[in-house]
Amino acid sequence: MRFCPYAQRARLVLHAKGIKHEIINIHLKDKPDWFLEKNPLGLVPTLETEAGEVLYESPITCDYLDEVYPQNKLLPQSPFEKAQQKMMLEHYNKVVPHFYKVVMAKENDDKAALVAELKEKLVKLNEKLGTKKSVFFGGNSITMIDYMMWPWFERLEAYGVIDLLNSTPELKHWYDCMSKDPSVIACSHSTDSHKAFFKSVFTDGKPNYDYGL
Amino acid sequence: MRFCPYAQRARLVLHAKGIKHEIINIHLKDKPDWFLEKNPLGLVPTLETEAGEVLYESPITCDYLDEVYPQNKLLPQSPFEKAQQKMMLEHYNKVVPHFYKVVMAKENDDKAALVAELKEKLVKLNEKLGTKKSVFFGGNSITMIDYMMWPWFERLEAYGVIDLLNSTPELKHWYDCMSKDPSVIACSHSTDSHKAFFKSVFTDGKPNYDYGL
Repeated sequence: MRFCPYAQRARLVLHAKGIKHEIINIHLKDKPDWFLEKNPLGLVPTLETEAGEVLYESPITCDYLDEVYPQNKLLPQSPFEKAQQKMMLEHYNKVVPHFYKVVMAKENDDKAALVAELKEKLVKLNEKLGTKKSVFFGGNSITMIDYMMWPWFERLEAYGVIDLLNSTPELKHWYDCMSKDPSVIACSHSTDSHKAFFKSVFTDGKPNYDYGL
Repeated sequence: MRFCPYAQRARLVLHAKGIKHEIINIHLKDKPDWFLEKNPLGLVPTLETEAGEVLYESPITCDYLDEVYPQNKLLPQSPFEKAQQKMMLEHYNKVVPHFYKVVMAKENDDKAALVAELKEKLVKLNEKLGTKKSVFFGGNSITMIDYMMWPWFERLEAYGVIDLLNSTPELKHWYDCMSKDPSVIACSHSTDSHKAFFKSVFTDGKPNYDYGL
């Protein structure tokens, strides 16, 4: 699904590693039978290899791609550094719901409180980056963990909370550097597109998965 | 913590691989400062290496051990088979809460319904094993995924639902074979001990982390 941040993780890794692939978009409210036959869980991303092997869950799929395709390794070779990226991802998984809470806030919700909660999480991420003293989360070049985290940051402006980065200078610098990465650029949607998609989902209640096509 | 199933995963892997280690039990309601300094999240298991590197989250810790210590590899070498074990673990993670729902059921809860839900999940696991046509979840010898799943099965009798295995013949066979594994035996507590620990937690409200010492 073109606007799915989890699917975007796989697209980022495919692009960064230069892996030839075909993308088939799935209408999440009307999944085709052939898709559910391949993956009964109906998740996106789902990867099918030339051998017909089917993989799903974005970090598992991305790790598989990094292991099978040797070019431009995204995971560190050191087992401890690899484990650190996995622990960071576990931490980040608990941040992700806070992005959604903000964008899905209803009129009666205390949106300021939800934004404050998200800000607290971003400040923690900023501290982590500050402690590492590196531009990216795995060092001074982009690695797997950066691509796993990126999709929700791409949407910060569409969520209406891009100003939060003013309180998180290291994270802001990471955001700026990520924004210039060729794979990030190639796999991105504009803020206007994200906004139009969110409107179709949250305001109109009719997700326009094909927006912009 | 001696009765923590997540910590048990790490103990199983340490034992199966014959890795020399020291175990320090943590009182989860009164975590020592030195422990929280090493791991501010305060999770068990937490692994500290000789180099002072700190790891947590049981599957990450176990994968690290399997990667660093070459003897008796528990994860498959094939990237796809490894990914299959990770996908299976994701699936199993969604089964785990159902064990707890059963053992934590209050008098007013519809316990029969909770047991029926767990049964449905176990029947699914049984089907998966049936489809694989192998004794264990990764083939005909024990691999990582079996040790990741085992701790909650060890407690089935203490949960009072061991009879569910009568409806799941392949899973029952797996259970019986696992029960004979030297590492499973070495890292196990008796059903009576599990029951006494559960009583201390759920009936008395005063977890006896040291039960049996």
